[in-house]
Amino acid sequence: MEIVRRVHSMREIAQRARSRGLKLGLVPTMGCLHEGHLSLIRRLDELADVIVVSVFVNPTQFGPGEDYERYPRDLTRDADLCIAEGVDYLFAPEAMEIYPPGPRTHVEVEQLSDWLEGASRPGHFRGVATVVLKLFNIVQPTVAAFGQKDLQQAVILRRMVRDLMLDVELLVLPIVRDDDGVALSSRNKHLGEDERAAARAIPRGLEAAERLVAKGETDAAAILHTARETIESVEGLSIDYLELVAPETLAPISSLEGEGYLAVAVHCGTVRLLDNIALKPPV
Amino acid sequence: MEIVRRVHSMREIAQRARSRGLKLGLVPTMGCLHEGHLSLIRRLDELADVIVVSVFVNPTQFGPGEDYERYPRDLTRDADLCIAEGVDYLFAPEAMEIYPPGPRTHVEVEQLSDWLEGASRPGHFRGVATVVLKLFNIVQPTVAAFGQKDLQQAVILRRMVRDLMLDVELLVLPIVRDDDGVALSSRNKHLGEDERAAARAIPRGLEAAERLVAKGETDAAAILHTARETIESVEGLSIDYLELVAPETLAPISSLEGEGYLAVAVHCGTVRLLDNIALKPPV
Repeated sequence: MEIVRRVHSMREIAQRARSRGLKLGLVPTMGCLHEGHLSLIRRLDELADVIVVSVFVNPTQFGPGEDYERYPRDLTRDADLCIAEGVDYLFAPEAMEIYPPGPRTHVEVEQLSDWLEGASRPGHFRGVATVVLKLFNIVQPTVAAFGQKDLQQAVILRRMVRDLMLDVELLVLPIVRDDDGVALSSRNKHLGEDERAAARAIPRGLEAAERLVAKGETDAAAILHTARETIESVEGLSIDYLELVAPETLAPISSLEGEGYLAVAVHCGTVRLLDNIALKPPV
Repeated sequence: MEIVRRVHSMREIAQRARSRGLKLGLVPTMGCLHEGHLSLIRRLDELADVIVVSVFVNPTQFGPGEDYERYPRDLTRDADLCIAEGVDYLFAPEAMEIYPPGPRTHVEVEQLSDWLEGASRPGHFRGVATVVLKLFNIVQPTVAAFGQKDLQQAVILRRMVRDLMLDVELLVLPIVRDDDGVALSSRNKHLGEDERAAARAIPRGLEAAERLVAKGETDAAAILHTARETIESVEGLSIDYLELVAPETLAPISSLEGEGYLAVAVHCGTVRLLDNIALKPPV
């Protein structure tokens, strides 16, 4: 595996591969890789000839006072994991190259970016969309994979790809969970022991809602109430948002007719955790 | 020559050409082609194997109350001109395909977009950058050509290409003028006879400034004064802006040390005309 630090090198490598008729697969990450990322790499390995994993803690998707500085970084460990997975290139550019001095170009997906995560983190999705577009343009992958944990990110990037007519297939793969049900996240590293125990209530809340739906409940208020009660019954958890939303538009739904997503963000100590689950009324 | 109306067809045609190792050249236009556009086509013909001219009157770069509805359109004549120039594909998509319903993704180049044209036409360059990015993504040209008449557009697109790491070379080619000095523009069609005569004062004003610079004047105020006096001496012309700016940043300059651009927008009857000239102190 080669670690690539320069944009022009990555671009040349990708161009060479394409000109040989090879399909490139890209997994954009902020590093500190876990089984969630590895599941993306493994899936892409079946679909593409050359696998590029990018590791870039993107400053523009962090707001003032957010955890950009303390976001976990461990490129050596990331490289070892990538080697073990048979990754071909680990692309880890410097921020100065991705954001050169001078006026900046940014990309924004209207409407979808303003609520849920966007309400709590203004400008977050502008940063995400912009950096992903840059990575796509550098690598020009045939296929790129993202995790379902970042539900809103996946919806926004799908819209961006469609809207900007990008020639890339997006794969969005299921959340990978730890044995205790907590969704894998690089930020979990920052959880203390008690916080980690408390965090289990988040997937328990989503599962409680799922069971309610399985029994025939379709009323959003009732579904949300059950999840909220389970999560808030645990000390140390504070819900930032909990919403039942439509899959494509992320618009709130009052009654579950077709598929919906129950999406939640929870403060757990100093860490903010995301989770979500797809819900569908029984046939 | 083939007229292509659908995005997916254009994309397939371009993909086929690229897979055969051919270089694509793109001339994005709003149609109503004139010698300025033809000069772009002829130059690209020397650099690319397959020439695509897009004709799309882009609604998002027109503000409320601007001339979107009455912008001149003549696809039959455009097609004839393109055939005569040996163009391979005329891409004339429907607005519905370029802007499908639902949330929209847009691209913006900060700072550069807010003044000169951007001050008079808020959102204009957001529309321009977004549609050009879409066209680039559909056609994926090796090289694309634009006219120097739209100075600020050229600077913004150059920055967008660099900043989004797009794999396309931008060519910006000189203004083509009519025998009377007036810069060619599709909007000139709307000029009445008297207005057309008045419009000649615009290039005369720029030339007067050029002569002053040739004599050694470097003070922006003096240069601007000369151009303004020439233009405003003619009845029926009203200057929207007249500025001496730096080439890359478009920042106003108070003294002409290196190269600068004298850029002007003038209302002439109901038509708004643009022009500019590069100025450089004598060595």
